Amino acid sequence: MMPYLERLTRRIRAVDSFVCVGLDPQGLPVEEVIPHNRALIEATAPYAACFKPNLAFYEQFGIPGLRALEATLAAIPDDIPVIADGKRGDMPNTAAAYARALFEVWGFDAATVNPLQGQDATEPFLAYKDRGVYVCCRTSNPGSVTFQNERLATGQTLYEYIAEEASGWGANVGLVVGATAPDELARVRALAPTTTLLVPGVGVQGGDPAQVIAAAGSKPGLVVVNASRSIASAPDQAAAARNLRDALNAVSWTPV
Amino acid sequence: MMPYLERLTRRIRAVDSFVCVGLDPQGLPVEEVIPHNRALIEATAPYAACFKPNLAFYEQFGIPGLRALEATLAAIPDDIPVIADGKRGDMPNTAAAYARALFEVWGFDAATVNPLQGQDATEPFLAYKDRGVYVCCRTSNPGSVTFQNERLATGQTLYEYIAEEASGWGANVGLVVGATAPDELARVRALAPTTTLLVPGVGVQGGDPAQVIAAAGSKPGLVVVNASRSIASAPDQAAAARNLRDALNAVSWTPV
Repeated sequence: MMPYLERLTRRIRAVDSFVCVGLDPQGLPVEEVIPHNRALIEATAPYAACFKPNLAFYEQFGIPGLRALEATLAAIPDDIPVIADGKRGDMPNTAAAYARALFEVWGFDAATVNPLQGQDATEPFLAYKDRGVYVCCRTSNPGSVTFQNERLATGQTLYEYIAEEASGWGANVGLVVGATAPDELARVRALAPTTTLLVPGVGVQGGDPAQVIAAAGSKPGLVVVNASRSIASAPDQAAAARNLRDALNAVSWTPV
Repeated sequence: MMPYLERLTRRIRAVDSFVCVGLDPQGLPVEEVIPHNRALIEATAPYAACFKPNLAFYEQFGIPGLRALEATLAAIPDDIPVIADGKRGDMPNTAAAYARALFEVWGFDAATVNPLQGQDATEPFLAYKDRGVYVCCRTSNPGSVTFQNERLATGQTLYEYIAEEASGWGANVGLVVGATAPDELARVRALAPTTTLLVPGVGVQGGDPAQVIAAAGSKPGLVVVNASRSIASAPDQAAAARNLRDALNAVSWTPV
């Protein structure tokens, strides 16, 4: 298979869009998840660089939720990469089982992982060279500052150290950096100038698309920007995805 | 429901054992998981303070693996607490969905979580006051030192800061600290003298039971020590669990 980053870059160019559409069924009973997602995928696919189901919103329904995930994945056109947002992270042999689940059983193109357990715990994901691995670096929730912005003895913050360290773990590494902290996003970009970034937090969480591109860059392959609730709950989902695409494309970016 | 820690403490006293038996089906086809686990549960229950299925080893088989988890949970006697080892951690609204999955859908008594996203991301788990929440602090894999043992500007290491900070998040917080790092275990105990510890890493990973109790304490409720492969793959699983129980009980402990 073509490496994930190449597939993602081709798709970004094909639709001229950095938009990642989140597939996070919230506030719905499980029996409505499949029709809801099918409609959302159909409406937004023309503007979607990729789709990102957050596994929690399927797991919350138990096995019927995972059946809905199965049907959701089947509804996504083959040429659109799909990111499993599960933020898994554990001992190496456990991580290997998670990687097997996400990449072999479910067939995801990429996954988000939590780096707290270090490189050996991330390696089983990275070993799938044709898949992408987005390492959590600076998340978009207010409480993330407690540990992620903690100052180290070296003078760096923890998220800066994660960016610098994890970006060297392999060609298929990306970083997750929230749109709600544009200064941190620019800092990560400076530390990892060629690493692909997955940026959640525009839309309901309040991150500004223009600030995201100004900080993260606009070269295809360098960044995708996720919106979930702001697209899924819009009266016109296609228009919401298109408007986000246009807002991201309106910004020019000067490489750091 | 009685709080988790009280249920765990009662069970520890009832069987006079700090042993947590890991239910981590490795190296088996999915159709052998249910009979394997039923036999393991039956053999070890008399010595088990609690059971701990690691979710990855079920998820690696997709939906059939989760059916096997369902049958596994049904085979565990009601008076033995069960810990979901999934190390989940994400944004608050996502964490709420994970907590719903683990505590409401699956009915686990406790869960392991990853604290990298901070207190607000852990709060949805902690909100289930009758359940236990074990926060990853110092894990037992070699790569864990990269971030967890990193020195902060305050002089503490990250794992020490996690121990101090997270142990204040609620009465139902515990900490995960690996047996392979006994000095770190003693340090965590000093920082969080009354917090319950979940200690993996004895058995195959090489942690020494005597060192664990010497460092973590032997007061019922203060500690459970997990073994998975070393019990599951023993020719006599009951004897392996009993021997670990006896090794842990042989040590006397002086409070720090």
